[in-house]
Amino acid sequence: MISSEKLQKYKDWIFRTSAYRMALNIISIDKMTVAPAGGSAYRDARTAFLAGELFTIETDPEIFSILAEMKDDEDLDGDTKRAAYLYWKGTRDTMCIPKEEFVEAAELMDASYDAWLKAKKEDDYSIFEPYLKKVIEVRRKFYSYRNSDMDLYDQMLDDYEPGMNREKYDAFFAALKERLIPLIQKVTAAKRIEDSFLYQNYDPALQKQFTDHLLAYLHFDPEWGYQNETEHPFTSWTCENDCRTTTKYVENNIASAMLSTIHEVGHATYEHDIDDAYDGMILSEGVSSGMHESQSRLFENYLGRTEAFWSTLYPKLQETFPEQLKDVSLKEFIDAVNVSVPSLVRTEADELTYPLHIMVRYEIEKGLFDGTISVEGLDQTWNAKYREYLGVEADKASEGILQDVHWSDGSFGYFPTYALGSAFSAQFMHAMRRDIDVESVLKEGRFDVCVNWLKEHVHRYGCRYDADEVLRRATGESFNVNYYLDYLEEKYTKLYHL
Amino acid sequence: MISSEKLQKYKDWIFRTSAYRMALNIISIDKMTVAPAGGSAYRDARTAFLAGELFTIETDPEIFSILAEMKDDEDLDGDTKRAAYLYWKGTRDTMCIPKEEFVEAAELMDASYDAWLKAKKEDDYSIFEPYLKKVIEVRRKFYSYRNSDMDLYDQMLDDYEPGMNREKYDAFFAALKERLIPLIQKVTAAKRIEDSFLYQNYDPALQKQFTDHLLAYLHFDPEWGYQNETEHPFTSWTCENDCRTTTKYVENNIASAMLSTIHEVGHATYEHDIDDAYDGMILSEGVSSGMHESQSRLFENYLGRTEAFWSTLYPKLQETFPEQLKDVSLKEFIDAVNVSVPSLVRTEADELTYPLHIMVRYEIEKGLFDGTISVEGLDQTWNAKYREYLGVEADKASEGILQDVHWSDGSFGYFPTYALGSAFSAQFMHAMRRDIDVESVLKEGRFDVCVNWLKEHVHRYGCRYDADEVLRRATGESFNVNYYLDYLEEKYTKLYHL
Repeated sequence: MISSEKLQKYKDWIFRTSAYRMALNIISIDKMTVAPAGGSAYRDARTAFLAGELFTIETDPEIFSILAEMKDDEDLDGDTKRAAYLYWKGTRDTMCIPKEEFVEAAELMDASYDAWLKAKKEDDYSIFEPYLKKVIEVRRKFYSYRNSDMDLYDQMLDDYEPGMNREKYDAFFAALKERLIPLIQKVTAAKRIEDSFLYQNYDPALQKQFTDHLLAYLHFDPEWGYQNETEHPFTSWTCENDCRTTTKYVENNIASAMLSTIHEVGHATYEHDIDDAYDGMILSEGVSSGMHESQSRLFENYLGRTEAFWSTLYPKLQETFPEQLKDVSLKEFIDAVNVSVPSLVRTEADELTYPLHIMVRYEIEKGLFDGTISVEGLDQTWNAKYREYLGVEADKASEGILQDVHWSDGSFGYFPTYALGSAFSAQFMHAMRRDIDVESVLKEGRFDVCVNWLKEHVHRYGCRYDADEVLRRATGESFNVNYYLDYLEEKYTKLYHL
Repeated sequence: MISSEKLQKYKDWIFRTSAYRMALNIISIDKMTVAPAGGSAYRDARTAFLAGELFTIETDPEIFSILAEMKDDEDLDGDTKRAAYLYWKGTRDTMCIPKEEFVEAAELMDASYDAWLKAKKEDDYSIFEPYLKKVIEVRRKFYSYRNSDMDLYDQMLDDYEPGMNREKYDAFFAALKERLIPLIQKVTAAKRIEDSFLYQNYDPALQKQFTDHLLAYLHFDPEWGYQNETEHPFTSWTCENDCRTTTKYVENNIASAMLSTIHEVGHATYEHDIDDAYDGMILSEGVSSGMHESQSRLFENYLGRTEAFWSTLYPKLQETFPEQLKDVSLKEFIDAVNVSVPSLVRTEADELTYPLHIMVRYEIEKGLFDGTISVEGLDQTWNAKYREYLGVEADKASEGILQDVHWSDGSFGYFPTYALGSAFSAQFMHAMRRDIDVESVLKEGRFDVCVNWLKEHVHRYGCRYDADEVLRRATGESFNVNYYLDYLEEKYTKLYHL
């Protein structure tokens, strides 16, 4: 049994690391939402220093040995052992990096983010290219320090989705290709669905007003959540009882901000619903990127794109935009937000072609790390892949390779979890429907009934169990891609009268 | 001559402290603008811990002795010696406080701010009273640790305005009383000026839109500044090239947010204009609260309430609110924003009665620390003082004792600098007029000419010289209250045809 003195050291350590992590989270949200660009250099240098302070605390060898002892201590309860294991794993993977390099990298990532932002604004990949190159080099070096037997990119995949690797993702994407490509072809050949009314002029100030109403409907409580605006919507689980989401109001697109809001609130709700007993420690986080994305996608697609979900909201939307929507029925509105057309921008993509956007990124990441794809001219590689899979090609880098923020800070291995999460959602929805008449409760405006089911069967666990264990507990079986493919086939066959 | 090794330690120390200070600034702005209240307890505990980390670094005895050596080192340049002296003084006054108590106090101040916010919202002084009591006790204790010969409240006054004490403030306020009370009586007896059009319904969204235009006119550049909204407007000089201001849009008052915006941009501009050579260290701050307030008041009152300032802006304001302002001439508008009527809320007060609001607070603070005034029933004491000096009394605590944030974190001694700063402004304006035809440049929309004069004669010095030295450099003489009193007498005699 671990000594009480060591246990106290462990608890103090958790508190100290949580303080630095909170500070870095807030500095990061501030940077991404409101901080003036002129202060970047000054702030980034100091942010990197603080990240270094956290690094020093996190990699304290005394704590590492306490964690090693705790993770195998049979006398400890399951929660504590699991937490100790996860902390130990994180520390092991961090402490192999020399601190100086770690701090330099933190500063590089901030500068790289700024360069990406500038490049996107000016539609010029060449501004970002040298940073991307450096970011890849740093990631490559840092992973090599681990001395793992695993392939480099497999390690990255495993970091975001423990248990996943190229082999499994290859099989997953192969299954998707096999059934989705023919389906997409049929949809593309089918009669077009009218959706031009979504792309009229919608005053962003009024969109914001309706969004406040939508946030309330989603039970995104100002007591624990705040939504801001950014170029690229995201969610940050800043700390306990404090989740920040962002959205982007697009003047000539009413669906964009609405759906991104529902999506991000899915992330925020997952974090908020985690068992309070885990507050302030590692178990109080979503278990994997895929699991996180399953909750945001479930909100956005499986609930947020349905007639039942909008039945109580749509009259208010019509009221906000009478000129644009008074002659559009609820059914027409829902059909329109489900239209499938191959497009350029992932975050604006429809549910059916979405996984193809991910496949492009997955293949590029694989290539970047096995050396078959180069950073030079990557904008062209990107365009070629889009032509191949989606039949479209970006005129502007901002709608091509520069559209996503992820690579600017070296989040390689993250994208594939977006497709995986979408597939998880289908399996969760299948299970939810066994307990709840989803359409009925949504038509009664009782969105919280669905949320409560998710809280009970998914959210509350946080990091307590691996993603696959959460799937088994909630749905009775391990991950099965067929729920996802069946769902898409059924939905789009019906929508397009195939 | 100080060794290069020690000099390097000093420089590293400045960088480290600046990193923590930046983090604490950003956490604080975040808390006051957007952070969800539910996360307060979690955040505050960790913020206090980080304040403690900064405390440990700031009070490092080795650095203290280096600072002591540097401040008297005749071989060092004047800038460095001055910085070392200011750092040394700050460290001396901090290191006498036991760290544990310092951290506890940081947490108390956050909780006290939350209690003040709640009390103000619910119009209930009793929610705030116990916190105010604790805050006063803590301040009393902390100042007693200094073992200074100076009286407790004199020390507080000196902290915000080096060189000031009760004796000097008593003389200052006596001079104000002597000439302002009769003037106010004459104004009160004079014919009322029509200003009801200022208090119609003004859509906050449109106010915000006009404010963006106003911010641009003021040269508040998004590259280094960002304005948000809060209950109580303030400015935070977060870090180099990064100033945050806030305002509050009042639906039935068009002047409030406009003037508060001009005021806060005055603060922000002062900080931004400080010599770049001082970046990242103590000289890169405004020299005193009074000097800071002189710049915000100069912007707000001496420029922002004049016909010349508004001559290029007013057509745009009329355009934004045609229904409310189309029949109001520029002269009528300016007369209205200068109307003097004794009122309840300091931040909404006119220029003439404003110092009386400060006198109320000054007398209460003096009484709280010499034991003649008690925290119990302080709301009643407040009301009695307002009756006495201004002839008005608040029905609601939110418009009485709870209107200001300052006491929630123990900023006693701060308020008097507001009146002092207003008086400094008059002296600066008198000097500026010797060099610039202020009315002419404003009528040409060249606000930057005034800003550049201030940058050259006031702003750039930062903390390099004491306030009185800055006054002497800029105006040729030490502080002289008569410029202020002459200005008010002349302005209000003319406005009210006395």
